[in-house]
Amino acid sequence: MASTIGKLFSVTTCGESHGAGVGAIVDGCPARLAISEADIQEQLDRRRPGQSHLTTPRQEKDRVEILTGTQPGATLGTPIMLWVRNQDQRPGDYSHQDTVPRPSHADFTYMAKYGIAARSGGGRASARETVGRVASGAIAQKLLRERFGVDLVAWVSTVGDVDAPVPDLPALTRADVDRVPVRCPDSKAAADMSSIIEGCSERDDSVGGIVSCVCRGVPAGWGEPVFDKMEAMLARAMLSIPASKGFEIGSGFGAARMNGSSHNDMFAMSDGSLRTVTNRSGGVQGGITNGEQILFRVVFKPAATIAQPQPTVDYEGNEVTLEVKGRHDPCVLPRAVPVVEAMAGLVLADMALQAAS
Amino acid sequence: MASTIGKLFSVTTCGESHGAGVGAIVDGCPARLAISEADIQEQLDRRRPGQSHLTTPRQEKDRVEILTGTQPGATLGTPIMLWVRNQDQRPGDYSHQDTVPRPSHADFTYMAKYGIAARSGGGRASARETVGRVASGAIAQKLLRERFGVDLVAWVSTVGDVDAPVPDLPALTRADVDRVPVRCPDSKAAADMSSIIEGCSERDDSVGGIVSCVCRGVPAGWGEPVFDKMEAMLARAMLSIPASKGFEIGSGFGAARMNGSSHNDMFAMSDGSLRTVTNRSGGVQGGITNGEQILFRVVFKPAATIAQPQPTVDYEGNEVTLEVKGRHDPCVLPRAVPVVEAMAGLVLADMALQAAS
Amino acid sequence: MASTIGKLFSVTTCGESHGAGVGAIVDGCPARLAISEADIQEQLDRRRPGQSHLTTPRQEKDRVEILTGTQPGATLGTPIMLWVRNQDQRPGDYSHQDTVPRPSHADFTYMAKYGIAARSGGGRASARETVGRVASGAIAQKLLRERFGVDLVAWVSTVGDVDAPVPDLPALTRADVDRVPVRCPDSKAAADMSSIIEGCSERDDSVGGIVSCVCRGVPAGWGEPVFDKMEAMLARAMLSIPASKGFEIGSGFGAARMNGSSHNDMFAMSDGSLRTVTNRSGGVQGGITNGEQILFRVVFKPAATIAQPQPTVDYEGNEVTLEVKGRHDPCVLPRAVPVVEAMAGLVLADMALQAAS
Amino acid sequence: MASTIGKLFSVTTCGESHGAGVGAIVDGCPARLAISEADIQEQLDRRRPGQSHLTTPRQEKDRVEILTGTQPGATLGTPIMLWVRNQDQRPGDYSHQDTVPRPSHADFTYMAKYGIAARSGGGRASARETVGRVASGAIAQKLLRERFGVDLVAWVSTVGDVDAPVPDLPALTRADVDRVPVRCPDSKAAADMSSIIEGCSERDDSVGGIVSCVCRGVPAGWGEPVFDKMEAMLARAMLSIPASKGFEIGSGFGAARMNGSSHNDMFAMSDGSLRTVTNRSGGVQGGITNGEQILFRVVFKPAATIAQPQPTVDYEGNEVTLEVKGRHDPCVLPRAVPVVEAMAGLVLADMALQAAS
Repeated sequence: MASTIGKLFSVTTCGESHGAGVGAIVDGCPARLAISEADIQEQLDRRRPGQSHLTTPRQEKDRVEILTGTQPGATLGTPIMLWVRNQDQRPGDYSHQDTVPRPSHADFTYMAKYGIAARSGGGRASARETVGRVASGAIAQKLLRERFGVDLVAWVSTVGDVDAPVPDLPALTRADVDRVPVRCPDSKAAADMSSIIEGCSERDDSVGGIVSCVCRGVPAGWGEPVFDKMEAMLARAMLSIPASKGFEIGSGFGAARMNGSSHNDMFAMSDGSLRTVTNRSGGVQGGITNGEQILFRVVFKPAATIAQPQPTVDYEGNEVTLEVKGRHDPCVLPRAVPVVEAMAGLVLADMALQAAS
Repeated sequence: MASTIGKLFSVTTCGESHGAGVGAIVDGCPARLAISEADIQEQLDRRRPGQSHLTTPRQEKDRVEILTGTQPGATLGTPIMLWVRNQDQRPGDYSHQDTVPRPSHADFTYMAKYGIAARSGGGRASARETVGRVASGAIAQKLLRERFGVDLVAWVSTVGDVDAPVPDLPALTRADVDRVPVRCPDSKAAADMSSIIEGCSERDDSVGGIVSCVCRGVPAGWGEPVFDKMEAMLARAMLSIPASKGFEIGSGFGAARMNGSSHNDMFAMSDGSLRTVTNRSGGVQGGITNGEQILFRVVFKPAATIAQPQPTVDYEGNEVTLEVKGRHDPCVLPRAVPVVEAMAGLVLADMALQAAS
Repeated sequence: MASTIGKLFSVTTCGESHGAGVGAIVDGCPARLAISEADIQEQLDRRRPGQSHLTTPRQEKDRVEILTGTQPGATLGTPIMLWVRNQDQRPGDYSHQDTVPRPSHADFTYMAKYGIAARSGGGRASARETVGRVASGAIAQKLLRERFGVDLVAWVSTVGDVDAPVPDLPALTRADVDRVPVRCPDSKAAADMSSIIEGCSERDDSVGGIVSCVCRGVPAGWGEPVFDKMEAMLARAMLSIPASKGFEIGSGFGAARMNGSSHNDMFAMSDGSLRTVTNRSGGVQGGITNGEQILFRVVFKPAATIAQPQPTVDYEGNEVTLEVKGRHDPCVLPRAVPVVEAMAGLVLADMALQAAS
Repeated sequence: MASTIGKLFSVTTCGESHGAGVGAIVDGCPARLAISEADIQEQLDRRRPGQSHLTTPRQEKDRVEILTGTQPGATLGTPIMLWVRNQDQRPGDYSHQDTVPRPSHADFTYMAKYGIAARSGGGRASARETVGRVASGAIAQKLLRERFGVDLVAWVSTVGDVDAPVPDLPALTRADVDRVPVRCPDSKAAADMSSIIEGCSERDDSVGGIVSCVCRGVPAGWGEPVFDKMEAMLARAMLSIPASKGFEIGSGFGAARMNGSSHNDMFAMSDGSLRTVTNRSGGVQGGITNGEQILFRVVFKPAATIAQPQPTVDYEGNEVTLEVKGRHDPCVLPRAVPVVEAMAGLVLADMALQAAS
């Protein structure tokens, strides 16, 4: 079940780029949750291409339809089918793929695994696959807000060599994040990031970066010990996003250089409950939440599709210079923000239901 | 099934520190694989405490028994029960836990989740839980070697601010790694790491670090698209190890600062097969292996248990100074090496069987 | 994941009666299998209402669309989304449901579980849910035929007190079964069954019956020991079909009255392979196939929806006489035949892939 | 995960007959449940061989040890390892198996699947495998009683051609069932059944039968729609028991001969809650419990191991007369009673936790 995630709040996605559409079935969403297409559309609009000059000019309206599982005003407890038609298909742009595997794309590995390639675009390996994640993740996030008082906000914290300072985490809103197209809430860093991305765009190149995410309101006691630790399920969810190359929680890779005496989170009583004074744990201890903010970061590689000519070989081994046309993002980070939020939502919703059982 | 991992090669672990023992059931291991207790003991010996002056003086012989699933010389295809008795139990050392949750341990979160604490030690959250991982991972690794020609080697690449240079990956052996207790194959870095750890030991402190791992011989086509990507399953497995705080594959967090033009792995024909010239992908594209080495890194926080007095509060909120006795590692990295190998083995064995289906 | 079945060949269904439509995502179907809408439509046509005077006059064309996962001529290895729009919706027929739970329907239990009822029809509990099963089962059956040489045929073997003799199992075809609307290949029994059903129809009553199914060409060695035995997975699949009340394999309930000396299947060599002389096992021993025909039977209760007035109570406990309008089958058996085949196909396809791993 | 059952209350068993022992890991059992070895031993004693002259004289004390997951008085929420050593091993009795597959045993199918046979006894296919079921099922039943007020009682309702009348279901106790060794609460039927079994024993033959089971106190709303229906999960659990050949719930196979007008369960108000007047549904509608008693039946074939000489062939196809020594039950039914209870307990406990989520 490679296309299914979640034990109780369970999502199965389907669809290729440049085919009829992309979709998802959400199974296990509790009944009587108010959910409408507008709730979902909001996050899809943040993911869709063509939002700004920083993203691909490929235009997809990405209108979601709820095909099953709800009636006006509420979920029925039955599977919710979400569907988004593909609209702006230009299969001709991808004709080279039959003979030349694109570097750092999945053309070669899909051919090795399946012995057949989708006729156009990245097929299932295209970033378009994330539409199903974002749509189903929007439902998960609504469930978390309405039933559990949990919300989560992601933002772009690094592009190239520009690192934004950590924002005011308890106060941060999606409006803050969306103020500029690059989705970094710090104005100065955002301006520098935009310059970098524009520069890449001019040079037909791409650039990587980091998305950070904070989850607020998660009570102590969510997550499972051993193999289904909260951080393990988050890591799996994040590394399943196309182009991601790493995940860290709390102190993350910085923990390598620290001592226990300065890393340990001491306890203190605050408003009648036990809290940690610092949060180097990132909200989890032993796989289980401790009631503090869950804070994690996901790194994305520079987009593999660049318009620069690339010297490579075809499947026969003949040297070729690949020139990819298509229409692509010089930096996937701004559009990755709602995808990270979606995946965090799916993991937390599943853990919320497991904790209730 | 928090204590179960794997779809076809499936492992369920059990056992607490300071209880009767720890164990694992391996289900789905193919029949007629030659496996003996010696195959497993080898890795357990690399994990066990008391190996050197760098690790905890707690002595556990950690002798594994294969209780079911084999007869002399071979697996039967039925579940293999592995069992390791606990020997050196000193529950008295942990008497404070009833009233004071140890900082950056799972005492508080387990209490929040379960409403009961194991009488002594970390219970299921103790690093002793990894015995079951190492034992079952040894079987997975034997399967990978014998049936698929895959081997894997992990080593300590960072302790504190000492980073070892990348070793000769195709040639690296476990003997190279084990030459010094710190399990870093580079002599110079190893010496510096040992100094750091000894310094921590003297100051009753601890230090973090990074374990790197290379998997060799994995053919193209292993792994699943979308949610069960190879890197996603590795990330989940690694973040499930106690004290881990992050995972990166290939270019990892460094990818944030790179451009696509320098990050993309171009193809070239080599000895009749398509290979990549560079390996920033770390052996996977789109979740599926490309036939190159899988290369990843896992960061571990400094051990939370330190002998220094720590100012914290008890469950009632009263200020206390915690002084943990016990016997613990100033640096978990050397002993984490076989645990990382075990978890990588479990993921790869499961993916190998899935790829064959 | 109540709406998902299968470990490697995995199906998730969605959709309510009287909503927008019903569908299924098939994940794990191997790549390069030739599959077209016609392959699927054939079985949907055998399931659809309005086929003959023996079934409900509700007319649904039930045209399947393959929305994702294939390109002309072949599967891609990615999830296959199947979708069938609902067409003949008459929600008004079901207005009583808000206040009166229909006897032996799921209205009451869904309300107990979800606290909300689909506005019309049985919602997810309607037999219309089986469209997704039949559609995905058609793909499973094509896979079984093309890749494994396995086919399967179901037929109506009992209606009311009419039991058909066992047909010539190796020779039986679906054409034999479909010769008469009641889907019993024995002419004499079929005529008697039709009379019974017509009688029920006239009396506004319904009648139960049994569907038998034979699976041919299954090699020895499919199925898993212990909890995932072939017969266990078949039983689960069959009891998941709406209105089914029992399952038996091989000698089935008749085994209660037999002795081991007459029940045991002796071995004999036939054409170079070990075969059993009799087949009271029904093709499985210890959960694993033995190379003989798999033969099982599924009983269906009389349809709960009858036009006769029924004395019952509403949710408040007030006595009412329920008169259900709608348009329903006096006997679900003929239309259950392709559903049984579908579910058998799903189980066998999953087991086939597991056996290959 | 052929040896794992359950999504939230999850059990993995291990062990072969005539090996070191048999066991199970119970994962997902809630914390703070009082459980002792005595709770488990009670059901193991009802399963063990050598209880009476009606069962095999093979003597196994079958003492259970709880190796992990509890401390005196309570579960910890962590995996509970149960272990029962094998004691009365006589591998020599089974030496023929290397060359002659026993009729209607799993020797042939295990060899087809695994290419290796356990050296003695049925290995994993032996009924001894059910020890792990009974032990873990005892914990499930304790959870059901203490936390949910649910209990369940099974009994032998048919042996050969003797059918016992349905007992007083609300009043039936295990003491009633255990009054005679044959485990049928009706004295007259029990006497007749005993005669039949004794006759088989004298003739070196065996006989089949049926176990019935009632589950009391289950609230409305347990179970999942579509593929994980309560009756589907029960059917799977029951058909996974060695030697079972069929399952029916409520009206079962008798439903084939009934009309809807007499089969439908009308509603009536009773003590303020909606109840059904009859219970042909067997306590479930649409896969979800309706608050009535769950009532189901499982048929077992006559034991395949009989002391009579059997004309069969060896693996080479040579005709041989097989004379099985060993020590075996002429009728497995009395010992199947606690196994049926165990499996029902595992399914209900899992559904109880799912319903709570």
